[in-house]
Amino acid sequence: MTALEYIRCIGESWPTTKERAYFEALALKEHGRLSPEHVPEVYHFDRTMSLIAMRYLEPPHIILRKGLIAGIEYPLLAQDMAEYMAKTLFFTSLLFRSTTEHKRDVAEFCGNVALIKHTGQVVFSDPYRVSQYNHWTSPYLDQDAEAVRKDNLLKLEVAELKSKFYERAQALIHADLHTGSVMVTPESTQVIDPEFAFYGPMGFDVGAFLGNLILAFFAQDGHADQVNDRKTYKEWILKTIEETWNLFHSKFIALWDEHRNGSGEAYLPEIYNNADVQLLLQKKYMTDLFHDALGFGAAKMIRRIVGVAHVEDLESITDVSKRATCERRALDLAKMLLKERRKFQGIAEIVAVIRQF
Amino acid sequence: MTALEYIRCIGESWPTTKERAYFEALALKEHGRLSPEHVPEVYHFDRTMSLIAMRYLEPPHIILRKGLIAGIEYPLLAQDMAEYMAKTLFFTSLLFRSTTEHKRDVAEFCGNVALIKHTGQVVFSDPYRVSQYNHWTSPYLDQDAEAVRKDNLLKLEVAELKSKFYERAQALIHADLHTGSVMVTPESTQVIDPEFAFYGPMGFDVGAFLGNLILAFFAQDGHADQVNDRKTYKEWILKTIEETWNLFHSKFIALWDEHRNGSGEAYLPEIYNNADVQLLLQKKYMTDLFHDALGFGAAKMIRRIVGVAHVEDLESITDVSKRATCERRALDLAKMLLKERRKFQGIAEIVAVIRQF
Repeated sequence: MTALEYIRCIGESWPTTKERAYFEALALKEHGRLSPEHVPEVYHFDRTMSLIAMRYLEPPHIILRKGLIAGIEYPLLAQDMAEYMAKTLFFTSLLFRSTTEHKRDVAEFCGNVALIKHTGQVVFSDPYRVSQYNHWTSPYLDQDAEAVRKDNLLKLEVAELKSKFYERAQALIHADLHTGSVMVTPESTQVIDPEFAFYGPMGFDVGAFLGNLILAFFAQDGHADQVNDRKTYKEWILKTIEETWNLFHSKFIALWDEHRNGSGEAYLPEIYNNADVQLLLQKKYMTDLFHDALGFGAAKMIRRIVGVAHVEDLESITDVSKRATCERRALDLAKMLLKERRKFQGIAEIVAVIRQF
Repeated sequence: MTALEYIRCIGESWPTTKERAYFEALALKEHGRLSPEHVPEVYHFDRTMSLIAMRYLEPPHIILRKGLIAGIEYPLLAQDMAEYMAKTLFFTSLLFRSTTEHKRDVAEFCGNVALIKHTGQVVFSDPYRVSQYNHWTSPYLDQDAEAVRKDNLLKLEVAELKSKFYERAQALIHADLHTGSVMVTPESTQVIDPEFAFYGPMGFDVGAFLGNLILAFFAQDGHADQVNDRKTYKEWILKTIEETWNLFHSKFIALWDEHRNGSGEAYLPEIYNNADVQLLLQKKYMTDLFHDALGFGAAKMIRRIVGVAHVEDLESITDVSKRATCERRALDLAKMLLKERRKFQGIAEIVAVIRQF
């Protein structure tokens, strides 16, 4: 594969320019070391200049979100993203790391607080309060947006997720893993733009990716026309959602089994030394992670419909009434998932409810 | 109150001497600023010399554990400890702090990793594996110690608490808040020795204190004699357990209500702006904290009976058979609390089950 170098300069407009580039380079290097096939290589980083020299993702790489809008299938997407997430999350967690390494890296990424705070605000705060920056497809969704702000049960669940986002240093997460942060060809999947990275809950990454695939699914009816009704493509998206989680689950467990006698602090082999307790542990861990992913994924869907920054999948639907219908379905599903996530045991159940909305 | 200065030198034997003194001084100053009546004042700290000059806690101050063994009642203990815990935990959490302050301080205390790791090992690992340092009242508790190591359900719950201990930066906790870290007179309560401090789960502090009171309760039968059957004193301990939690709860909620329009990131007033949602939030937060405290408190009881370091309350019972009986009661209660903590809604229920063991 041709890999031309190019220089990527971060603009002057962002207030935290320098630190932003530093943490982006740090996360690219760390995630790239752990999952080299799915993260572009960093050739050089200059902190004084805030300059990252990294692999040029040559054509025909395009942003995944554009591909999803165009209705292109990516046969490797689920397995590549599952591998990227399993490796980056497992190897930076206490399942693999020692306490000393973990605390050292948690401390380092605390320095990325400006961008962490930005994420926290747009995901967990803005959609639930009146804000001049919020917008939605008006007047169609006026009542829906108000309902989000008045839903006490929803806000209670959002509060729990917000605490987890800020307090739980479970792994080095990308923290902005939507379909605009992935570049693809049918043969290649590359995760870019980890400038929001920090030690946070794993479910925030897994949920971001799944949630954005669900948004892409609900946008399809707005892109359907007489040439292409998008029905086959919608099935492909659902299959990709299901496979992404299932492959992530199996790859994560495989890494855990492979490294269970290593230096990871979380579950010492001399304590968790029989098959029964191992099985119970892994089931509990993955179920908790699944529920986190559903919660965070739902929060990310909501913020893309009634919050500050929207997604092109939906924004590009020119028929406003049709767009509002797509958005309302996605929003209603997300609200339900956020509130009732703990009752779901597997991704097949989620795919089944997506079909119902 | 006379407050003589004295110089406290940390010995050379501990491998992390210098950093230990640094974090102890830092925590003393921060907790002292937040709860000045219950933390001795630091006059001077010299990092190069690892030297803390702090208030001398003059006689008749004694270590609370000694007082509990002697059967002395401390009428202010519950309210003082409740105030100390409510203030130090509330004001260092995201209920009060901004994200920027929080991440800055979390990063700083990550440096205390050697002592954090030590705590994690003695509380969450050693009691559940064969270790040359573990000991117990043998042969009486041989089977009990083995049962702890073979209890899959118990170890599953311990794993969850261990993850929370290492990953959840909820507040600046003392992290060693047993009854040996408190000096008392009937008029004064002073918390000392926070060298293990870091940003961790609040329940670890609350549980440590309650768990050590429960150990003191179960030790009383071993200290009873013909002059004093300790029945009245046992009632006083139970009352103190109940009042400590109830007063902590009310003081914590009062601080929350007082500062709800402040700069705390967790629950922005423009989102959580009605009485219904506030009530739901606080109930959920305090219930989770109560369950954490029960879990961590139980883990701390277990480690004092079958782990490395024991408590004088029990060790000072010279009749070995009698000591083993006291220990088994405490151990059985702790195992039950750790596994079934989520079914309890209030401290009165805990006091009721303590009476049954």
